[in-house]
Amino acid sequence: MIKVSVMYPNTPGARFDHAYYRDKHMPLLKRLMGDSCKSYTIDKGLGGLGPGAPAVYVGMCHVFCDSVGSFQAGFGPHAAEIMGDIPNYTDLQPVVQISEVVVG
Amino acid sequence: MIKVSVMYPNTPGARFDHAYYRDKHMPLLKRLMGDSCKSYTIDKGLGGLGPGAPAVYVGMCHVFCDSVGSFQAGFGPHAAEIMGDIPNYTDLQPVVQISEVVVG
Repeated sequence: MIKVSVMYPNTPGARFDHAYYRDKHMPLLKRLMGDSCKSYTIDKGLGGLGPGAPAVYVGMCHVFCDSVGSFQAGFGPHAAEIMGDIPNYTDLQPVVQISEVVVG
Repeated sequence: MIKVSVMYPNTPGARFDHAYYRDKHMPLLKRLMGDSCKSYTIDKGLGGLGPGAPAVYVGMCHVFCDSVGSFQAGFGPHAAEIMGDIPNYTDLQPVVQISEVVVG
């Protein structure tokens, strides 16, 4: 199993609509990717480790797929539609990482 | 539910022992935190989005707790022992973020 983590840097003054992300964007991604997206999770940044420290990322999602190939097969054909929805909830550029799920 | 994400930047030349992290460090954390750690996950960085792009983080864990207070109560008394184990698997300084689990 792999996960694709999409992480939005917590930049002062930037826009991020958590409700749209949860209610519209991620369900859109799941609907378009179909079974190639086994599941997904969403995080909302609360803070860093120390008192009052800001979160590094304002929001994150993690998309779980059987393999990198399965992700590419499910995401690729819909990349334009999924990425075209990004301006509807943020003006941030996400950081993307693909990881092996060691313990899930 | 909250998650504490501990993310190790993928720095060229740095050391990170994935087997120790999986087999020794995270079980140590779970044993010491007890029920205040509901569960944890471990990721191993494979790459970025583009072909050949490096992963931002070489490894990550996410520790799930009922609340920030529950994490602090479980981790605080054992912080010295848990953090003292870090040099056994890496010379990296992790980035730590606390997030609300919006979709888990």
